[in-house]
Amino acid sequence: MEDRLVPNIVVGRLPLYLRTLQLMNQEGRRVTSSQELGERLGISAAQIRKDLSQFGEFGKQGTGYSIDYLTDQLRQILKVNKVWDVAVVGIGDVGHALARYQGFANRGFRIVLLFDNDPQKIGAKVGEFTINSIADVVKMVREADVQIAMLSVPVVYAQQVTNLLVEAGVKSILNYAPINIAVPAPVHVQYIDPVLHLQRMTYYLD
Amino acid sequence: MEDRLVPNIVVGRLPLYLRTLQLMNQEGRRVTSSQELGERLGISAAQIRKDLSQFGEFGKQGTGYSIDYLTDQLRQILKVNKVWDVAVVGIGDVGHALARYQGFANRGFRIVLLFDNDPQKIGAKVGEFTINSIADVVKMVREADVQIAMLSVPVVYAQQVTNLLVEAGVKSILNYAPINIAVPAPVHVQYIDPVLHLQRMTYYLD
Repeated sequence: MEDRLVPNIVVGRLPLYLRTLQLMNQEGRRVTSSQELGERLGISAAQIRKDLSQFGEFGKQGTGYSIDYLTDQLRQILKVNKVWDVAVVGIGDVGHALARYQGFANRGFRIVLLFDNDPQKIGAKVGEFTINSIADVVKMVREADVQIAMLSVPVVYAQQVTNLLVEAGVKSILNYAPINIAVPAPVHVQYIDPVLHLQRMTYYLD
Repeated sequence: MEDRLVPNIVVGRLPLYLRTLQLMNQEGRRVTSSQELGERLGISAAQIRKDLSQFGEFGKQGTGYSIDYLTDQLRQILKVNKVWDVAVVGIGDVGHALARYQGFANRGFRIVLLFDNDPQKIGAKVGEFTINSIADVVKMVREADVQIAMLSVPVVYAQQVTNLLVEAGVKSILNYAPINIAVPAPVHVQYIDPVLHLQRMTYYLD
């Protein structure tokens, strides 16, 4: 748990608000409300107002939120008003997909380094990137000052690769391996697990 | 938004509780508490107790929760005490990864059908599965009575494939394409979007 002023769970909802605002912007919209955001996201309008109020005053009673302004503010709060460099470790199916993913653009991230331990992959290219040897991960990640990594290695390698990433100075790890990994306190871990999403839908099935 | 007794956001937390309980079980644990669950998940103990109380009484004051019993109850509530058949549409990098994913076992899901529109892929095998033509998706999904699909097609195809899946009787779609899709009211959609996870970690970076 975070020992900070704003609860982790509130921080976790801000990217949802930001994505929805960016989609509204693409739709040519200019103004929205906590009610409309809430309907799109399945979160109560009161919760959204309470979450946002932790960071300041972003809207006026009766006139709602300027989509541009609130987008800018959320990008600042989440620190994605800059572009973060990201390393991908494990270039199997998921790693390939991440290296080619079009969804990072304009959202604060770009992949800069790929690693694998398979001699047949090392030196090969995925798009514009060359796959590097995992043997060089600590040196290369440290030199490039990369603070974010996506981990898409087999379960058996997940913890040892995590240890290397932490040693290299990585502060945030997005883990696709279906296993929990241990990290020291200042490092954050998030998990991508399709089953969590599937299970919240079966609740509604007969 | 769901017009049901239990808020969507509460349902969304139950799979997190279930996964944590199953990990505790693998660690050989027998009993836990809302405090311990909360610490592992970054959710307050009070929130966890309140969430669970919407479904019944699962623990005793002072003695905590039986991990086995609460696991069974959550599997029933989420309807994953059975195995659901799942179709995967779009067998690129992500689709391949899903078809081979080891994390579905014992969690309520198994993949049974794969589809793609690429003539070079149709008829090929991924593990034990043959890739079928998207032209047959409505017929095959309907005949197999598959209610859950994972969508890993390019953005430009996402909506038209969604329409086919809905026509075939699919009730839950897990969408990997970085675009919102429109579905009629009884169909549920969840999104896998790595950027949402990355952005909630950059908040904590300097």
